[in-house]
Amino acid sequence: MGVLLNGLDVEALQQLVAQVQRDPEAARALNRWSARVRWLGGFKGRAYIREHSFLIDEPADLAGKDEAPNAVEYVLGALGACLTVGFVLNATKRGIPLRHLEIALEGEIDNILTFLGLSQEGHPGYREITVRAYVDADADEGTLQAVWTETVATSPVGNTLARSVALRPILSRVAS
Amino acid sequence: MGVLLNGLDVEALQQLVAQVQRDPEAARALNRWSARVRWLGGFKGRAYIREHSFLIDEPADLAGKDEAPNAVEYVLGALGACLTVGFVLNATKRGIPLRHLEIALEGEIDNILTFLGLSQEGHPGYREITVRAYVDADADEGTLQAVWTETVATSPVGNTLARSVALRPILSRVAS
Repeated sequence: MGVLLNGLDVEALQQLVAQVQRDPEAARALNRWSARVRWLGGFKGRAYIREHSFLIDEPADLAGKDEAPNAVEYVLGALGACLTVGFVLNATKRGIPLRHLEIALEGEIDNILTFLGLSQEGHPGYREITVRAYVDADADEGTLQAVWTETVATSPVGNTLARSVALRPILSRVAS
Repeated sequence: MGVLLNGLDVEALQQLVAQVQRDPEAARALNRWSARVRWLGGFKGRAYIREHSFLIDEPADLAGKDEAPNAVEYVLGALGACLTVGFVLNATKRGIPLRHLEIALEGEIDNILTFLGLSQEGHPGYREITVRAYVDADADEGTLQAVWTETVATSPVGNTLARSVALRPILSRVAS
């Protein structure tokens, strides 16, 4: 193990970046991600991702059992997680030790009534998401701002949300 | 408790929809969602959402400890969860009993090298996501297809991804 900065092995990280840069197939593999969600009754489901899984439910006031966050909440958590990883990566690349990083997210759905079929105005997706990063680190204001700007600009989930993704829906009937 | 269909109390669901339709403030409250993500060292973080929380990490080949899915995987899980809830809602509204529902998702990032600062071509967000729904239900093919089409068109996470969300990033320095 090499020198640790922010809990990351700096040398291993450099080797990883060098390998992805050298090997187009390694890079392509990192472009592909998958998941599977199984319905558990009511509004409850479980997502399976590699060797991990997580529960999804709706709050009680949306006819759920409130055993887990719901889908639109997971989107906010995913964006916060992505910006966390990006900030740590970009700070570590510059040799900046972080003491604390927390990201608060507030999302505004355009018009939830369209989800329930009660309105034709607008759409049921997020219209805007405010993201507040709270950082304590050994670096001046300008450097931290540069890390943050780079992090937002290069965030996989940030770009996924800010841009338009092509969805390809396919329905298959199965005997269970 | 009223009649249960697909694990949902049909009467309670109708009352919920009627209340949201009647009360603009109840509808507005359902447009607002929030989350908070705290960095735990390395690429690990925990998202806090109401009384729930979940862990986020990176796989070992991305310098993580692989204790949880990563951010882009949570996005796929969120989309699958949203389409699950929507399908169950729209089938239940039509009185269709479901026996099985599973959704498989495959996402393709445009160019992950841009996340690592190794390329200026393209972007690090998802370019496209293929969503396969596997359903077993007491309904004919055309009806199930209509439920699926309506579900995709009115999905909060589906619309969030298919459209462009305005991100408002703000950085604050704190003493920890």
